[in-house]
Amino acid sequence: MPEIRQNIITRQWVIIANERAQRPDEFRAGAKPPAALPAHDPACPFCPGNEAETPPEIHRFPAAGQWQVRVVPNKYAALAAEGELVRTTAGLKRTITGVGIHEVIVESPVHKATLARLGDAEVERVLETFLRRYHQVLADPRVEAITLFKNHGVAAGTSLVHPHSQLIGTPIIPGEVRERLETALRFYDDNGHCIFCLTLADEQRDAARVVDENEHFLAFIPFGALSPFHLWIFPKRHCASFGCVEGGELPSLARILRRVLRKLGDGLGDPDYNFAIRTAPKESEQVRYYHWYVSVVPRVSKLAGFELGSGMFINTALPEESAAFLREIEVP
Amino acid sequence: MPEIRQNIITRQWVIIANERAQRPDEFRAGAKPPAALPAHDPACPFCPGNEAETPPEIHRFPAAGQWQVRVVPNKYAALAAEGELVRTTAGLKRTITGVGIHEVIVESPVHKATLARLGDAEVERVLETFLRRYHQVLADPRVEAITLFKNHGVAAGTSLVHPHSQLIGTPIIPGEVRERLETALRFYDDNGHCIFCLTLADEQRDAARVVDENEHFLAFIPFGALSPFHLWIFPKRHCASFGCVEGGELPSLARILRRVLRKLGDGLGDPDYNFAIRTAPKESEQVRYYHWYVSVVPRVSKLAGFELGSGMFINTALPEESAAFLREIEVP
Repeated sequence: MPEIRQNIITRQWVIIANERAQRPDEFRAGAKPPAALPAHDPACPFCPGNEAETPPEIHRFPAAGQWQVRVVPNKYAALAAEGELVRTTAGLKRTITGVGIHEVIVESPVHKATLARLGDAEVERVLETFLRRYHQVLADPRVEAITLFKNHGVAAGTSLVHPHSQLIGTPIIPGEVRERLETALRFYDDNGHCIFCLTLADEQRDAARVVDENEHFLAFIPFGALSPFHLWIFPKRHCASFGCVEGGELPSLARILRRVLRKLGDGLGDPDYNFAIRTAPKESEQVRYYHWYVSVVPRVSKLAGFELGSGMFINTALPEESAAFLREIEVP
Repeated sequence: MPEIRQNIITRQWVIIANERAQRPDEFRAGAKPPAALPAHDPACPFCPGNEAETPPEIHRFPAAGQWQVRVVPNKYAALAAEGELVRTTAGLKRTITGVGIHEVIVESPVHKATLARLGDAEVERVLETFLRRYHQVLADPRVEAITLFKNHGVAAGTSLVHPHSQLIGTPIIPGEVRERLETALRFYDDNGHCIFCLTLADEQRDAARVVDENEHFLAFIPFGALSPFHLWIFPKRHCASFGCVEGGELPSLARILRRVLRKLGDGLGDPDYNFAIRTAPKESEQVRYYHWYVSVVPRVSKLAGFELGSGMFINTALPEESAAFLREIEVP
């Protein structure tokens, strides 16, 4: 019999369709051999030598010599960097001027590089850049919330293969972020604990859904994962905001993120994927009830009418089986 | 400057990226000529002659002679039709046994048929079957909510091309459905009106986002549409539940649904799409604050990391421009 599980953090229910479950290795059935990419593509706007094709650079590391990581405004920004924040209400219609920040973080000068195959130190440079831009963008008085994310592959919504991530700073708190905060706040009020901290302890104790772990982070497939191989990376130290990452946590995060992406790549045949850093909005950076984390979603299944029509998901992979499969994949 | 709009019914904010907006006809750029399908495929489990390949039939119309519409249990059901509803809570883990109803409605005996190109009377037969199964499945004491939906095309999550829709009756009210109800209830409490009825009147008056209209229904692109050409079909008569459709409303609904799908098909080059009937759960079938409707989502854009990470959407089509484009497409 299938099982309906609740994701305790999002309060979403998901049907774990164990009777039509696919074995972990079936998810690689559709995998195509990765395109053989060159190390440098003269037509790529993110390749060295083409720096003039992007809007003026915001940051580069290192400052001198060949850059390793580079931050530029998104040429096709979803939000305008300049302009005033104006709210308008006309009857049922509410609008806000679309001001905000939309940046691209170029992760490597090498066209064919992937986070999964970079070295730990290189991934750490990328995350350090995330952190730097996080702090600087949040200082903009118009920005209320930041989403840091990566689209890897066409199915995940990217058109440019050169490795890059994005940052969007919005002038409002997205409705879903607000709902997560409210759910977590209610749990805290009722139980006196951060629900993320409890989940972390629970997953460590249970071990069945753990994919990887190091000193500062735990990677696991949630008990109520909405889609196959949907993964969460939780920091062990409580903090609501990605901005509080410090000291040894950054290399730890780089290592677990790289290893998780490598396990997904090796295990599932380089699937397209997204990841996003879910962090509290500016006004809630220090709250005791919320906890920042990284969500990794390989695009190995499709949303269909049931999901769109009900908001409820069907997951055809068993979280425990998926986690065991990934856990056992050896990666450097 | 881009505009951030609120979808007043879902309370979601969406970035209308008008500076990188695509013209309506650009969305058909990726369209492939539809595969030339046979009228009958001997290998298709939904084609006449292969009735034994599906689980035992639940309903057929007409009862004698060649069926035109046929309802069968989904062979790969997400929920089990037999079994007891048992809730379990163990620490943070909540589960419910996966009992419920998962049916397939075969919409035509013709393999290559599509709803967009069937006659009005044929589409009406399909919707009549939806209504019949809606009432019968809701009578199951274990079923709390029903989602009726269609996946058309691979990008929309279907593998079988033979025209069919699905019904899922769940033993719980999906979290998103509950949230919509709560939002609508709050609006009713504050304003004394059904927010859907007000939106309907507003869209009729404004006319800029209307795609089609007839005696009983209005099809429009919401002011805060989450994705390009995302469409809603609202019944003009207030009712929380699809189950209340009666008399002349059924032919009206058949006609507007067929015309809308045909406009999308002709205008955008037969895109894959989903539709879903959003209807109140069993316990709220008669409430004054909720209003059933049909949501149609052509899969012409991709969800990416920003949407997954924030729950907020970027729509690269202007609702008013999309609506004008579809409105002007002449269909029978």
